[in-house]
Amino acid sequence: KNRARLLINCPDQPGIVAAVSQFLYGYGANIIESDQYTMDPMGGNFFIRIEFECDGLNEKGSQLEENFLSVAEKFNLDWKIMYVREIKNMAVFVSKEPHCLLELLWEFQSGNIMANIAVVISNHETARDMVESLGIPFYYIPSNRDIRKQVEEEQKELLEKYEIDVIVLARYMQILSPTFVEDYQHRIINIHHSFLPAFIGAKPYERAFDRGVKMIGATSHYVTNDLDEGPIIEQDIDRVDHRDNVDAMKKTGQSIERSVLTRSVKWHLDDRIIVEGNKTIVF
Amino acid sequence: KNRARLLINCPDQPGIVAAVSQFLYGYGANIIESDQYTMDPMGGNFFIRIEFECDGLNEKGSQLEENFLSVAEKFNLDWKIMYVREIKNMAVFVSKEPHCLLELLWEFQSGNIMANIAVVISNHETARDMVESLGIPFYYIPSNRDIRKQVEEEQKELLEKYEIDVIVLARYMQILSPTFVEDYQHRIINIHHSFLPAFIGAKPYERAFDRGVKMIGATSHYVTNDLDEGPIIEQDIDRVDHRDNVDAMKKTGQSIERSVLTRSVKWHLDDRIIVEGNKTIVF
Amino acid sequence: KNRARLLINCPDQPGIVAAVSQFLYGYGANIIESDQYTMDPMGGNFFIRIEFECDGLNEKGSQLEENFLSVAEKFNLDWKIMYVREIKNMAVFVSKEPHCLLELLWEFQSGNIMANIAVVISNHETARDMVESLGIPFYYIPSNRDIRKQVEEEQKELLEKYEIDVIVLARYMQILSPTFVEDYQHRIINIHHSFLPAFIGAKPYERAFDRGVKMIGATSHYVTNDLDEGPIIEQDIDRVDHRDNVDAMKKTGQSIERSVLTRSVKWHLDDRIIVEGNKTIVF
Amino acid sequence: KNRARLLINCPDQPGIVAAVSQFLYGYGANIIESDQYTMDPMGGNFFIRIEFECDGLNEKGSQLEENFLSVAEKFNLDWKIMYVREIKNMAVFVSKEPHCLLELLWEFQSGNIMANIAVVISNHETARDMVESLGIPFYYIPSNRDIRKQVEEEQKELLEKYEIDVIVLARYMQILSPTFVEDYQHRIINIHHSFLPAFIGAKPYERAFDRGVKMIGATSHYVTNDLDEGPIIEQDIDRVDHRDNVDAMKKTGQSIERSVLTRSVKWHLDDRIIVEGNKTIVF
Repeated sequence: KNRARLLINCPDQPGIVAAVSQFLYGYGANIIESDQYTMDPMGGNFFIRIEFECDGLNEKGSQLEENFLSVAEKFNLDWKIMYVREIKNMAVFVSKEPHCLLELLWEFQSGNIMANIAVVISNHETARDMVESLGIPFYYIPSNRDIRKQVEEEQKELLEKYEIDVIVLARYMQILSPTFVEDYQHRIINIHHSFLPAFIGAKPYERAFDRGVKMIGATSHYVTNDLDEGPIIEQDIDRVDHRDNVDAMKKTGQSIERSVLTRSVKWHLDDRIIVEGNKTIVF
Repeated sequence: KNRARLLINCPDQPGIVAAVSQFLYGYGANIIESDQYTMDPMGGNFFIRIEFECDGLNEKGSQLEENFLSVAEKFNLDWKIMYVREIKNMAVFVSKEPHCLLELLWEFQSGNIMANIAVVISNHETARDMVESLGIPFYYIPSNRDIRKQVEEEQKELLEKYEIDVIVLARYMQILSPTFVEDYQHRIINIHHSFLPAFIGAKPYERAFDRGVKMIGATSHYVTNDLDEGPIIEQDIDRVDHRDNVDAMKKTGQSIERSVLTRSVKWHLDDRIIVEGNKTIVF
Repeated sequence: KNRARLLINCPDQPGIVAAVSQFLYGYGANIIESDQYTMDPMGGNFFIRIEFECDGLNEKGSQLEENFLSVAEKFNLDWKIMYVREIKNMAVFVSKEPHCLLELLWEFQSGNIMANIAVVISNHETARDMVESLGIPFYYIPSNRDIRKQVEEEQKELLEKYEIDVIVLARYMQILSPTFVEDYQHRIINIHHSFLPAFIGAKPYERAFDRGVKMIGATSHYVTNDLDEGPIIEQDIDRVDHRDNVDAMKKTGQSIERSVLTRSVKWHLDDRIIVEGNKTIVF
Repeated sequence: KNRARLLINCPDQPGIVAAVSQFLYGYGANIIESDQYTMDPMGGNFFIRIEFECDGLNEKGSQLEENFLSVAEKFNLDWKIMYVREIKNMAVFVSKEPHCLLELLWEFQSGNIMANIAVVISNHETARDMVESLGIPFYYIPSNRDIRKQVEEEQKELLEKYEIDVIVLARYMQILSPTFVEDYQHRIINIHHSFLPAFIGAKPYERAFDRGVKMIGATSHYVTNDLDEGPIIEQDIDRVDHRDNVDAMKKTGQSIERSVLTRSVKWHLDDRIIVEGNKTIVF
């Protein structure tokens, strides 16, 4: 595929689009999709995602990147180019509840997830069969707070072995250490089982039930070292009523969790998400 | 109209429905609608709302209520009968933002609100014209924390004068004193401009913007003396994205606020809401 | 389990609820859930679904049914009792696209479907592996218009062998013959890939794309001999826009199809659906 | 305001964005918002909407347009520039049901509609008071099939007098003649009370009720001379169930109609809608 995505984040000023599009045109590139956003026309940041096609991109790519440096310097661009032919390697971490993992596997099988699910790592054996039946390696690494350091070293070895680009926490009920998180900044996606910031922390369905809410939700976000406080990628909700006990809320919630997480993963893989401060721009 | 609604709250045990429906049948009543809910078949509470029609209910009503006492005693029922012919008197409290008041007035005009909007009270003059043009009395009572006691006395006089059954706080930005709230327990409906318990308290849209949420909401609840902690009646949400600044979120939010509040008011007027602890059962 | 569901359909008149609830009380039954609906208080039909618990129901059941005959006769009731302990046997028919079948299998595995998926029948081999890996028998019966009679005879043998109560057409792209449909009246659930009655018939996504609609949907219904005209059980929709081509609409649609079909199947299994004329009442 | 919107529709080819953005940069314009869409990278049409700010646009505008001609010629562009300072004049046509008109008036009053509601024309007197109380001229022109020609002449005189740019049919229950429609091509917005193409034509709620649908909708579209077949701008739906009779469906529908119509009107006023064939692109 001769397709790539150029992502730019820079101080807003006139002429950026002109310069960038002129540059791409110089390489014979055709812009397929372009989304931009200005935080504030008066002195805010400017963001743009351009998906383009370009004959012989495989060969031209590195030269194109090199020559782009002068444009980047002139406008003080923070930028990267992602090539569609470079399929990302994904690791899924999961604990006991398999619904989010299952949804990812189904979408993967259906050809809807543009990544290679390279490995599944779990602190439980529950999901082994369904993972291995698809020919995906499954590693059982029991975990708890006391052995976290050793567990994470085993995990990191696997992440390196499988050259992992993105980690999906598909209901993985362990906290990751700060260095682990920093190593994969904006590359670890978590699904939280509430409409954040409502019911931040543990047992959100129990607390939603106690508060008598009429809707429950789920939130996907990039993991940071502030628990449940990372940049939100996507949220969704569904109705509940007084007839729903905690179990019924969980069942409803699982359905929201799997769709919210899957949407987020797809956007990440399509390079649609730019993190700015503690927020996301989703193009 | 020969229609009434019987609301019951009692410890669950076999035979309640049989006894109540047998009793109503004895008066020739036809059950039009019946909803019930058991918190827990093993020792929980039982709730039922029966809407029935009965020829000559106007004349039979008080005798029916008197005779029902023996059934109520046997099953230890907490109950009340509401007659559809007795239109409730409603007072609307509003501050500067008129969107929720407007929605209520429109629905009132369209015959969709089964109440008499008897009076509108405001600490601003903003809404006077639109209210008086419909022939509804409007009272301007400036208010602030220091004169709350005196303000509430004026308000209470009006509530008594107009024989108010239910108070709707349609974006009324003043806190009511504990005694005021207690006098109208489960009869004051408020609309809060967030998806509670997220962004409880002041400036929810500003905080939603700062957190980078992807959906904003509104919550209607009965007012208690725990600010924003009363029993939730209804909630709804709508999508926002990174392009929405605080003002855009407010605009979107106003649309949710007015529909959530209006739905709640209609349910209250139809006697569909039972408060149990800090939750609502909405039949 | 000592739980059962009583479904009644009869001409409305006062006293039905009293008589039925009195009868159940006589057996010591506790009513867990009760939903009723009157088409028209003046001469319409009355429908009720009562879920009750009763100690020793296993032993008492047949006697209870026998004694209920006098109540049924007095009020001219069309009724049936379904015992929760009698798990229904389900057959799934599928063609090439497996997404609806997969959703049913996942929900089945998760314990969310109160039926026994006894057999899967397909005119393609596509789904064999995923079905057999769960220990469910899979039968490949190639089919086309010319051999329909013979195909249906093979199918009927399997339906009898596995004592099938309900057939789910999970994107089964063959038309069933009138006698087949009549044998399983109101027991064959189909999912149609459009928001019926829009785009009735073939190629709905192509036609939705051509018409430029902004939402696409899916519809589940009981199969009758009027193609796509059977009683609608459930519908849902999702947004599309000008960027979505036919393939993108199909992907979005598949997600709606699987949730709409699964919800319908659950309601059917919970005996929540009453068919009246060409409509459904879903309690 | 120094803000304008450039809308382009042309055959896709590399270099368009570069040329246009370079051109705008030459005038010192800052691109605030830009949305583009390619029907098909291989030989389809290309659409772009650019909102930009440019100091002294008031003075520079006509020269800018003149100089743009060479760019337009080179790439064979179909284009127009809309200046935000040129507020559009809007006429609202309404019959008896005022809910859609009311919503437009409320949004207008709240400053959410960037147009001048210059005149309201009706074949009933129903809405006169609410319109005139806002200082908007109201004209009562009784209408029926036999006098359509004369009625439309009166209407056209008013449209010219008030220099109308866009006509909103806010539940106007009369058919417009072909020449009238052609005079205002893609400038007449209608709201249809069903989820088109379901229930095209008259009495959609009655037919939705008869079919037993579980959702009802509304559709806004540009008026063409194929009744209810014009390019769809927006659609939305809400749930109904077996308890909803035709009247209840209408009530629910009215709420959808007013929000769908209002959204469409706002998009039209923001120059976000491009009509291509019988479809809309909404940026």
